Amino acid sequence: MSIQSLFTPRGVAVVGSTSEGKLGYELIRQIVRGGYRQVVAVNPKAQGAFDVSGYDAVAHIDRPIDLAVVVSPTPTVPAVLKDCGRAGVKAAVIITAGFSEVGNLAGEKELKRIADQYGIRFVGPNCAGIVNTRHRLFPTLETPPPAGGVSFIAQSGAVGGVLLAWAKEFGLGIAKFVSYGNAADIHEIELLEYLAADPETQVIALYIESVHDGRAFMRAVQACTRRKPVVVIKAGRTSSGQRATLSHTGSMAGSDAVYDAALQQCGAIRVHTIEELFDLCQAFLYLPPVSGRRVAIVTNSGGPGVLAADRAEEIGLDVAEPGPALKSRLSEFLPAYCALKNPIDLTVEGTEDGYRKTLTLALEEYDAVLALNIAPAYLDSVPLARGVGDAARSSAKPVLASFLPREIVADGIAVLQSYGLPTFATGERAATALAYMAAYQSTHQARKPTLPEIKPAPQRLPGDGQMLEPEALLWLQENGIPVPDFRFARSGQEAVGGGRAIGYPVVMKVVSPQILHKSDRGGVILDIQDDDAARAAFEAIRRAARGKDFRGAVIYPMIRDAQEVLLGLSRDPQFGPVVAFGMGGIHTEVWRDITFRVAPVDRAQAEEMIQEIKSFPLLQGVRGQPPRDLDALAGVLVSFSQLPFCYSDIGEIDLNPVFLFPKGLVVGDVRIIRATHLWPGEQQ
Amino acid sequence: MSIQSLFTPRGVAVVGSTSEGKLGYELIRQIVRGGYRQVVAVNPKAQGAFDVSGYDAVAHIDRPIDLAVVVSPTPTVPAVLKDCGRAGVKAAVIITAGFSEVGNLAGEKELKRIADQYGIRFVGPNCAGIVNTRHRLFPTLETPPPAGGVSFIAQSGAVGGVLLAWAKEFGLGIAKFVSYGNAADIHEIELLEYLAADPETQVIALYIESVHDGRAFMRAVQACTRRKPVVVIKAGRTSSGQRATLSHTGSMAGSDAVYDAALQQCGAIRVHTIEELFDLCQAFLYLPPVSGRRVAIVTNSGGPGVLAADRAEEIGLDVAEPGPALKSRLSEFLPAYCALKNPIDLTVEGTEDGYRKTLTLALEEYDAVLALNIAPAYLDSVPLARGVGDAARSSAKPVLASFLPREIVADGIAVLQSYGLPTFATGERAATALAYMAAYQSTHQARKPTLPEIKPAPQRLPGDGQMLEPEALLWLQENGIPVPDFRFARSGQEAVGGGRAIGYPVVMKVVSPQILHKSDRGGVILDIQDDDAARAAFEAIRRAARGKDFRGAVIYPMIRDAQEVLLGLSRDPQFGPVVAFGMGGIHTEVWRDITFRVAPVDRAQAEEMIQEIKSFPLLQGVRGQPPRDLDALAGVLVSFSQLPFCYSDIGEIDLNPVFLFPKGLVVGDVRIIRATHLWPGEQQ
Repeated sequence: MSIQSLFTPRGVAVVGSTSEGKLGYELIRQIVRGGYRQVVAVNPKAQGAFDVSGYDAVAHIDRPIDLAVVVSPTPTVPAVLKDCGRAGVKAAVIITAGFSEVGNLAGEKELKRIADQYGIRFVGPNCAGIVNTRHRLFPTLETPPPAGGVSFIAQSGAVGGVLLAWAKEFGLGIAKFVSYGNAADIHEIELLEYLAADPETQVIALYIESVHDGRAFMRAVQACTRRKPVVVIKAGRTSSGQRATLSHTGSMAGSDAVYDAALQQCGAIRVHTIEELFDLCQAFLYLPPVSGRRVAIVTNSGGPGVLAADRAEEIGLDVAEPGPALKSRLSEFLPAYCALKNPIDLTVEGTEDGYRKTLTLALEEYDAVLALNIAPAYLDSVPLARGVGDAARSSAKPVLASFLPREIVADGIAVLQSYGLPTFATGERAATALAYMAAYQSTHQARKPTLPEIKPAPQRLPGDGQMLEPEALLWLQENGIPVPDFRFARSGQEAVGGGRAIGYPVVMKVVSPQILHKSDRGGVILDIQDDDAARAAFEAIRRAARGKDFRGAVIYPMIRDAQEVLLGLSRDPQFGPVVAFGMGGIHTEVWRDITFRVAPVDRAQAEEMIQEIKSFPLLQGVRGQPPRDLDALAGVLVSFSQLPFCYSDIGEIDLNPVFLFPKGLVVGDVRIIRATHLWPGEQQ
Repeated sequence: MSIQSLFTPRGVAVVGSTSEGKLGYELIRQIVRGGYRQVVAVNPKAQGAFDVSGYDAVAHIDRPIDLAVVVSPTPTVPAVLKDCGRAGVKAAVIITAGFSEVGNLAGEKELKRIADQYGIRFVGPNCAGIVNTRHRLFPTLETPPPAGGVSFIAQSGAVGGVLLAWAKEFGLGIAKFVSYGNAADIHEIELLEYLAADPETQVIALYIESVHDGRAFMRAVQACTRRKPVVVIKAGRTSSGQRATLSHTGSMAGSDAVYDAALQQCGAIRVHTIEELFDLCQAFLYLPPVSGRRVAIVTNSGGPGVLAADRAEEIGLDVAEPGPALKSRLSEFLPAYCALKNPIDLTVEGTEDGYRKTLTLALEEYDAVLALNIAPAYLDSVPLARGVGDAARSSAKPVLASFLPREIVADGIAVLQSYGLPTFATGERAATALAYMAAYQSTHQARKPTLPEIKPAPQRLPGDGQMLEPEALLWLQENGIPVPDFRFARSGQEAVGGGRAIGYPVVMKVVSPQILHKSDRGGVILDIQDDDAARAAFEAIRRAARGKDFRGAVIYPMIRDAQEVLLGLSRDPQFGPVVAFGMGGIHTEVWRDITFRVAPVDRAQAEEMIQEIKSFPLLQGVRGQPPRDLDALAGVLVSFSQLPFCYSDIGEIDLNPVFLFPKGLVVGDVRIIRATHLWPGEQQ
């Protein structure tokens, strides 16, 4: 696999000027300082730097070069790649910018063409380089980090740079780093596939603004999350953020809610800030997994303990008080003035032994412990750190330490590091990291079905124009989606027949390809009680449709006391078919109580969707309301989510409202929009 | 004012052992290092330290001592205070712990008694000391901070210590600091009153877990916010946090939602984490006020720009694109590859001049600029900082800089500091600080009515037992709250009379002091259409109440198509009468769409309450629903909120539902609970 040549090259050529202050000069300095020796410089002057030899072409180098790192001016890059190709170089990191990100699509295509021709795989252009600490390889302009188990793939070089600098400052061990820039060749999916199998990578961090192929991305992430945690920042989650990613990478992001669903479906953990990304990488790399949400907070000062408890509870951790047995064991050695609630407050008198014993006992009862030490300058934090470290070492459960202020407790933090324990900037941030760990563990344990690839679906929707309501209802019915008994009427007489056949009271709705918002135009009449009313209603609807292409009216039974929900299908530009479920009616607009999944969903996922909307208690039955038929609903959601894989031209389907009864459900209204172009992946 | 003696004493006595490693020793070291010379030590051995003289009693000191700082053992403190009193000491800081926080209430009362006897004002016990940088006075065990305009009052010494340490590390100027501990004498209210008028204090930071008197606290905060920003952490906002504050300070906190309302009503800004507190103090102290929410993000790297834009939009800032005029002016000097959207991306090629000109122009169009610089190690951030600094200096609008990674751009950050510009840990945190600044500005501009004190109300609720529905409705009506036409019936015959008088269809409800949940017991019958149905309904209700104290039934008109809202009154242990407004019906339970104010509210506040619930669009009329009578609603909310100031024994009132019509409103159900004890402040 030639991606391997990126990370473990036999030799590296830095192509670009090595005059002082130029990027080539800085790169060679960085590579040499990092300890990698098999490096040469290539530039027209054949100028070296830092005892590294210079050549005027890659083809003239007299030893094996597997990797070229290119910082030469934009117009020279194609020729450089050809030179590399002729010299048998297997991989390149093209740091040089000036390609698709500034509209130079042709230049970028040319790079890809040349690379393909010579069998070169490359990262970039417009990237910040790569790192492989195990190989002591640092061809990047960012801070060389210490070695360890986190690998970081970043669509933004600067975000990568921040994380690497923090890795050095706070001691986070990095295995591999790739800033993949414009991703003209190697992109995030291939890198994820590589890291899934990479034994040196224990935790994967990912910064993305867009992905190349939503479903392939999901499969690649899933391959990783089956073996190691994946922590993701997906930037561009607001409209201004998306506008910025568009100008930044030239790529269109899909809907943010769909990214949320997709990342959750493939078991990744989505965070929002670089600080969260960093904290969580620390937690996953250095701490054992957590098996539940019960946390004890052990502190030597009240206020920071309270703040950590507030945060912990707010994000769903369980800050339960110690049970009587634990309280009694703690009171055997802790002074009477220590609060034995949770937080357990050792007070400023807290000792090494107090921390050690308290943590050890708390770790028996709880799933994890937050160990806080907020020390005034006169207090020696080193013994307290030893107490925390000893307790952590003797347990298979995580201890999240926050010793602060950092400047004052630096010695204590160093001791914690010697135990392999990370420290967090504040107790609140430690609590946040723990909540994410717990969330990862619970989703990780849940079985994740693999999504099908998108293939051309065998059938097409009936007809070819806009589907009218009677046609759409018939089609839904044929596909196993329950619709109410209905009749189509083209005259007052037929309306009466329909009313009688269904049984009064009934509802009548206009059918016209030109009327979308039926009730706004007086095209919906409720609670029609008899033949006369049916005739009158039909006339009223015909009048309301005056000047429009009037086809008739559809007649339904009048439905009362149903809970209204909605089901939706749409196509995301990145992920293809997406299914939605939410509360119907007027409250959808205010509360946006709706949830999405990349389609199709299986039964377990459908149930998960139903249970995760906030209004779920309303469906279960509250305040004397009967519980609704959630079994039937889940079944319909599964069938509905499969429709785009049977019919190739589904663009959007809204079933809104769907009437949900204590027994069964029926569609109350349907709108179907045909797709005007193919799904991603449906290249027929 | 003797609080002045705390901050500007003519002499300070440190009372406690000065043996090496003891707190007295550390304190004297800190005081001497800080530059304060008028300090002596007092302990039985008359031992000095660091060239400071020792005495065996305060009364034996031969120069004026205004302030005693006490770290002697708990049992000695009363005698120390007496000694101080005899020597004419005016103020004390009692750091020694072991009083009310560990249940020693008697000991704490004794301190207060002695202090009162001798006219000594004191901070503590169980506190971390005070700071007055202007006086170079650091009688505290926490980190001495640099001098500046932020004063910090902290109920937690450790939280104080963290903020002071960060102040030193990141350069935040502190005027005064008080850790007030158990607040046996001086507490947060008096300190706020002092700081409101203190010319050296430009920004007030406050960490509280509880307050002494809610309304006096609000008045004190309001006195501050009329002149300077007040940033507050109120900890204990969850149940575990509250449990912790209870054990920490021994004081009961009120409801968190009421604190939220109270702080908003007196113009303070509530934040949740120490990091937010710190960031916002920086912003308020070093930046000019912001007059709106339009922000330009100027960056030299895409990813961090996107993250900042995401965060900014998410918290309500307006990240609008530059107008055509600004775009055209920017394109005159920026290279074509720079994205002129928002973020404005100068790319890694961004120059000093590029930052200077771009910021200068952006500051003309926007209310504020976030200036991001994320630099690889080879890039010199100093000129970029100069560009940012020059632009900020030439504008009266705020520039929030985030230069990172901190280790790499330390020189640039120093340059920003020389311009008086703070830097923020990330662009996201800068955006958060800006959003708070904008929120402060808009609430600061709004007129804040001063809350009335709580005095004994002149009247009492009618009767003395539980108020039944007919009685409660009459009372509401007398007090200007609209109720529906209703009749009380004690027999089937009276029920028919009531039904006829009101006009069918009607609703009938059981009246019994023993039936609270009327509909759960079959005590509510809807849509009664005629005399027979009325008779039958009365009998049904009588049967439903079998075995209970049945008094009769109340008869209302049947109401349809109203929007249900709720109004509530309750009494908070800290703030007294509180008024609530929210959406009624089943959705209240799911969505908790409810808002609170410390009562009473005026018209403007009532309108604010109505507009701030999330369901407000439903009240305005959406999807063909008519708009509701918000004018009438606001009027009723005002009258309702004044009731506790007329009737002394209102414990709780729930009006739920209140039926809100396109014209007018009526109460649909009422529940009144009498207060069994006095309001805070009502000591008759």
